Amino acid sequence: MSPIRIDFPRLQRDIEALSAIGRDADRGIHRMAFTEGDLAGRRWFRERILEAGLEFYEDGAANLHGRLDWDGERPSVLMGSHLDTVPAGGPLDGALGVLVGLEVLRTVKEAGVPLRHPLEVVDFTDEEGRFGGLFGSQAVAGQLTPAMIHEARDLEGVTLAEAMASWGLDANAALFARRPKDSIHAYLELHIEQGPVLDRGDFSVGVVEAITGLFKWDVQLRGQTNHAGTTPMDMRVDSFQGLAEFAGEIERILEEHGSPHSRATIGRVELRPGAANTVPGYTGFSLDVRDTDPDTLANLADAFRRTLSAMARRRQLMFEFQVLSEIPPQRCDPGLVQLLSDKAQALDLKHLRLPSGAAHDAQIMATITRTGMIFVPSLEGRSHSSAEWTNWEDIERGANLMLQAVLSLAADGQEALQ
Amino acid sequence: MSPIRIDFPRLQRDIEALSAIGRDADRGIHRMAFTEGDLAGRRWFRERILEAGLEFYEDGAANLHGRLDWDGERPSVLMGSHLDTVPAGGPLDGALGVLVGLEVLRTVKEAGVPLRHPLEVVDFTDEEGRFGGLFGSQAVAGQLTPAMIHEARDLEGVTLAEAMASWGLDANAALFARRPKDSIHAYLELHIEQGPVLDRGDFSVGVVEAITGLFKWDVQLRGQTNHAGTTPMDMRVDSFQGLAEFAGEIERILEEHGSPHSRATIGRVELRPGAANTVPGYTGFSLDVRDTDPDTLANLADAFRRTLSAMARRRQLMFEFQVLSEIPPQRCDPGLVQLLSDKAQALDLKHLRLPSGAAHDAQIMATITRTGMIFVPSLEGRSHSSAEWTNWEDIERGANLMLQAVLSLAADGQEALQ
Repeated sequence: MSPIRIDFPRLQRDIEALSAIGRDADRGIHRMAFTEGDLAGRRWFRERILEAGLEFYEDGAANLHGRLDWDGERPSVLMGSHLDTVPAGGPLDGALGVLVGLEVLRTVKEAGVPLRHPLEVVDFTDEEGRFGGLFGSQAVAGQLTPAMIHEARDLEGVTLAEAMASWGLDANAALFARRPKDSIHAYLELHIEQGPVLDRGDFSVGVVEAITGLFKWDVQLRGQTNHAGTTPMDMRVDSFQGLAEFAGEIERILEEHGSPHSRATIGRVELRPGAANTVPGYTGFSLDVRDTDPDTLANLADAFRRTLSAMARRRQLMFEFQVLSEIPPQRCDPGLVQLLSDKAQALDLKHLRLPSGAAHDAQIMATITRTGMIFVPSLEGRSHSSAEWTNWEDIERGANLMLQAVLSLAADGQEALQ
Repeated sequence: MSPIRIDFPRLQRDIEALSAIGRDADRGIHRMAFTEGDLAGRRWFRERILEAGLEFYEDGAANLHGRLDWDGERPSVLMGSHLDTVPAGGPLDGALGVLVGLEVLRTVKEAGVPLRHPLEVVDFTDEEGRFGGLFGSQAVAGQLTPAMIHEARDLEGVTLAEAMASWGLDANAALFARRPKDSIHAYLELHIEQGPVLDRGDFSVGVVEAITGLFKWDVQLRGQTNHAGTTPMDMRVDSFQGLAEFAGEIERILEEHGSPHSRATIGRVELRPGAANTVPGYTGFSLDVRDTDPDTLANLADAFRRTLSAMARRRQLMFEFQVLSEIPPQRCDPGLVQLLSDKAQALDLKHLRLPSGAAHDAQIMATITRTGMIFVPSLEGRSHSSAEWTNWEDIERGANLMLQAVLSLAADGQEALQ
């Protein structure tokens, strides 16, 4: 077993330095893609790459790479995540994975480990979605089309092309960021869990087995708007009572048709006319359903549709829904899951195999290469908040697990996944 | 049995003429209190009173009276309702009761019936609530205070005092509109049902037994805001699921603690943050509960409070509520209920005794005098809408029932309720 460990104080300093960039004293960190904060964060990252004596490379999608031993021939072991944040975000979501990748490259370089595969760390552009999300990894995976690039715009109507042009970049060049599959040996990403599972169970790291897919529906129930005083209970066609009945069925549907990884959420509800003294004739709501298995997800969609439809028929409600999004689940590579578990074991880390409930660049990268993911705990499950945090010890453990996995994959004389 | 009947074509002409006043071609009738439409409607009504040779009287609350045989000594039989409308209202809500009262006075006068009691018809000011509602009847019943008058303002911030001053009226004079109890022998009101019961049962008239009281709560449930993907179902504190469970208990609570007249409505719901991919940490909603019996209403309040509290405890939600309003139920006078039923029988009208689920001037007048109410059917239960309507035959039947009841109460030689 390798005695090499990452330089934790250096990683700590990087995390602290980066978290000051884009910080608004009261409201968290603002490094949304192609904003001033993002630019400052990227400049800082480029300096770290050069300072470490690594090769710097920026592709057409503005993804920033640091490279070690790159020769343009051998497939590389790629570590990635993103430096951009949601508005008023926290210091770790995305940034931690990029900084750990950088630290692994520095450690391997300084230790002079001979490599079978070059190493790369990448900061993917606009993971968080100012212009839709997962832009940089989609570019690398060859999933972008000229139309997607042309249509991407933020909530204020600024187009991606305009935002990139203001930095002297051509958005269409993102099409050239596509990487041949044989240029990548494996993709690894370390990320905060953004959920409560590891923290509650007192685990130091998680090994992600799959990234959940989801379907998101916009549902409308239409009954009759009536006076709350003059309309007897048995003469009502109350759209909200329809939703309440349906919401009460969610647990049963997940038990009957789902898995322990299934999740279903009603997060948005709108009643019309929305007055206390009026039986609501209209109820609109969102349904967000996730699972790690495509068949389970399909079965859940069937079950939810049947339940909604039967409820609406029984209550004489009109029922319609639109699919807002549908993202297939992605399994992590079983070999990498095993490797990460073995290495966690060897490092004596309390670890758990679990699914990722959130979207990550890893699920895009999994379409072109074997992919593995390490989670570190989110205290109280907090994320997308300036209060998000992970204990320093767990950050160090996660980073050393990444180092060991990368050495297994890339160092001369190691055997994993050949 | 008296052969006298109201002059139906004349009543029809009045309904049609008044419905043209304040009408917006597309959006219904606009005669909100102290608006131009209201002023025009009141002028028109004053002309009809004078044209009929009746005495016109306006009290300090701007209530308009037509009087027959008034001598300031004998208590009168008073018929009332209101000419004001909600914004974009219909032609009958309020107006029908005033016009039927006017027609009864004209008919009795023309027939030369000798009266033991003077007759009055009154148009009550601001029943619909531009400045809070039931203003004119509250003034007559002596329920107003100087503070209430001073504080009343509309949604745009215009005060009642300003609105009345623009018509040359002094709002404080409303305190002088109070009527001594012994100046009124009985109060009768005809109104559209504003609900579907009479129309569905094919009844021509309803005899109101009681006007429902209500309590209206604003309820807040607070759980934890979480990511819909990363938070397992069993680690959630989902405020909306709490509301859904509670909403599913409403039917049981009404069955166990309510009466056939009980109604409970959730008409307003707000989730925060209100995003499809977020478990809602906050759910606020309204609960509107009505019944005709004060003890039943108190039992329902207890039951709803217990159910909410137990649900919140079980789900680890914080639970708070504020009482937005509380209005006690009012029984109609049993003698008048019997009189109206007997007269409906005698006129061979298919009639039903039922409660009123909506508020009316009658429930204010019931605090100072014996009170009876006649409902006529609302087609498909529609009200507060330009589409509200009642078949002409039922309007005629209701008006003749009012005439017969008034003759019983006020004509020389009749015996009812002496």
